[in-house]
Amino acid sequence: MDYPKAISDLIESFALLPGIGMKSAERFAFFILTKMNDEDINRFGDSLLKLKEAISRCPICANLSDQENCAICDDTTRDPNLIMVVEDLKDVIALEKTKTFKGKYHVLNGLINLSKGIGPQDINVEKLLSRLDNAKIEELILATNATIEGEMTAKYIKNLVSDKNINVSRIAYGIPVGGDLQYADLLTIAASLEGRKKY
Amino acid sequence: MDYPKAISDLIESFALLPGIGMKSAERFAFFILTKMNDEDINRFGDSLLKLKEAISRCPICANLSDQENCAICDDTTRDPNLIMVVEDLKDVIALEKTKTFKGKYHVLNGLINLSKGIGPQDINVEKLLSRLDNAKIEELILATNATIEGEMTAKYIKNLVSDKNINVSRIAYGIPVGGDLQYADLLTIAASLEGRKKY
Repeated sequence: MDYPKAISDLIESFALLPGIGMKSAERFAFFILTKMNDEDINRFGDSLLKLKEAISRCPICANLSDQENCAICDDTTRDPNLIMVVEDLKDVIALEKTKTFKGKYHVLNGLINLSKGIGPQDINVEKLLSRLDNAKIEELILATNATIEGEMTAKYIKNLVSDKNINVSRIAYGIPVGGDLQYADLLTIAASLEGRKKY
Repeated sequence: MDYPKAISDLIESFALLPGIGMKSAERFAFFILTKMNDEDINRFGDSLLKLKEAISRCPICANLSDQENCAICDDTTRDPNLIMVVEDLKDVIALEKTKTFKGKYHVLNGLINLSKGIGPQDINVEKLLSRLDNAKIEELILATNATIEGEMTAKYIKNLVSDKNINVSRIAYGIPVGGDLQYADLLTIAASLEGRKKY
């Protein structure tokens, strides 16, 4: 005897998720079948089926949004001459939680990763150039992660806009606030030394 | 800015699953949004929405099934006088994979767990008694796990049928096949000693 089809479909769907094997997928399917109430199950199923049609990319910054333009691009109180370049929506959410940035974003939805065949044409840089041409941008902040792909993408964008007379900056990398120097990895310590400021 | 509602609904649904926190839930939601194809997403959503209506309990053994009776109860080649009592469908699937048992099952869909307020009336034992009364059962195999709840449930069922003149057996617990005695826990070693057989 195998699992009834309705259960095996669900198990196989869970097993497609990153880091989820068959045993965890089985556990999730049985949890839903035996412990979750109908309302939660329906919300789960509906949110999956409606996900792709509800979410589109903002035509200005390419951020994922459930409106025509994203809420940040539509917000007229924010400075349109300050653009922060980030990898994806998760970075926007994390930055917005700090409530310290009052400019606009430009979301790449990816990073250049030549080993995976992702080149500059596969991420959202072309629209960035037209945004820079059509407005009087004061500062372009590159906030891609301090990984090989993030550094490569930041460097690529810096070179691309080098003739446009725009201030390009990169966010600071170093020891995390509250972190301990002795437990930081070598690259983080090196970055924190290189990025030192007059005190 | 918060997540668009379609994404936050999905994240919250994933976070309801056992062992899944907000970070993993976010990762799953973004994986589905950016990496999963439409066909897989639709199958995932459909399997959730159809799960509860497609799956019902077999009226004979209470196994979860997508047919009227489950495939095992309907199988006339199997011995109806040999009944194996298990906790749930997952145990049935695991036992069926071994292809060694040719009787029928009785699925409890739970174990007695007094600390969680689950008593004998909350698991499927009543129907077991009427099955035992209405057929000439030769052997009742108790295959609940060797946990406190499994042992308690097995003992409860054994007492319940003690006046019925039925052979009641319990599956063997001991060192796993291929396992190493020196790495086994004390209770498993004790169980393996207690269950020793003439060689």
